[in-house]
Amino acid sequence: MPHIDLGSELPGLPALLAYRPETAGPLRALAEALLRGPGLLSTGERELIAAYVSELNACGFCAGSHGACAAELLGDDSVLGQVTADLDAAPVTPRLRALLRLAEAVQRGGTAVTPELVADAKTAGAADQEIHDAILIAAAFCMYNRYVDGLATTAPADPGVYAMMARGLATGGYA
Amino acid sequence: MPHIDLGSELPGLPALLAYRPETAGPLRALAEALLRGPGLLSTGERELIAAYVSELNACGFCAGSHGACAAELLGDDSVLGQVTADLDAAPVTPRLRALLRLAEAVQRGGTAVTPELVADAKTAGAADQEIHDAILIAAAFCMYNRYVDGLATTAPADPGVYAMMARGLATGGYA
Repeated sequence: MPHIDLGSELPGLPALLAYRPETAGPLRALAEALLRGPGLLSTGERELIAAYVSELNACGFCAGSHGACAAELLGDDSVLGQVTADLDAAPVTPRLRALLRLAEAVQRGGTAVTPELVADAKTAGAADQEIHDAILIAAAFCMYNRYVDGLATTAPADPGVYAMMARGLATGGYA
Repeated sequence: MPHIDLGSELPGLPALLAYRPETAGPLRALAEALLRGPGLLSTGERELIAAYVSELNACGFCAGSHGACAAELLGDDSVLGQVTADLDAAPVTPRLRALLRLAEAVQRGGTAVTPELVADAKTAGAADQEIHDAILIAAAFCMYNRYVDGLATTAPADPGVYAMMARGLATGGYA
């Protein structure tokens, strides 16, 4: 049960966006810019980074919804589980693996991002803008995850709910 | 030295906002809504929460700039140091102390916010919207801090630089 009366039966972030429209606008615009706006990373790669950080933060609602978006956009519903279980062995490109390693460092803290991790990403073919965007997406999900769980919003248990939400988010975005 | 070429000699977050205008817009709008927009918390209280979380995340640039804003808006340049050194003994109202305890929990992780901490805040007089806003401000600074340090932006050592920035931010805001 949420820590405060949110005035709806919506789950997760949607409940919070409905509760406080003044902050919902910038939060939606940020998600749209990060996950759908102009950039070098594919939308599926961005959703995978978001879902991976949400798994590391154990945020069920965000991991469920962004994991389902990544599955929809990448056409592969097993990759998030493989990345989370063993990033070294997961079937992703060396460039994406290096960006996911940066995201994992960001989840621990900003100063955990070392020059060596950044150099590895560059060697694996990541452009500066991709490094920037991966770090900002990871940082942003350290916010969204804390917001969703810090107010104890509800998270549907049925994976079908996330798959249904993801079909809308994959094509319609967040704005 | 920043991990990627940001194309300017700006410090901290301003360097990142200049580098990627597509994400700068929503990030500025979010800071404005959180720290200056309509709400029950005073702007000084909000800046103090932002600065406290930045201290907990050891983010020098954000702690310096929002600490200076809090000092400017509260008319007290010692309160952040006292809150950071010993929250139980710091000269703040019981309501603000309880909200700062919520922020400290958010900094550790969303699920660290317990029903007991929320109940304590309500008992101390915090309204639901204040609890919401304190949790979201704390979550947002877990993003801004990671963004600023994850890309290894520079942080001026001179406190006078932050005081000068704060005079503009205190009156002009973030938009």
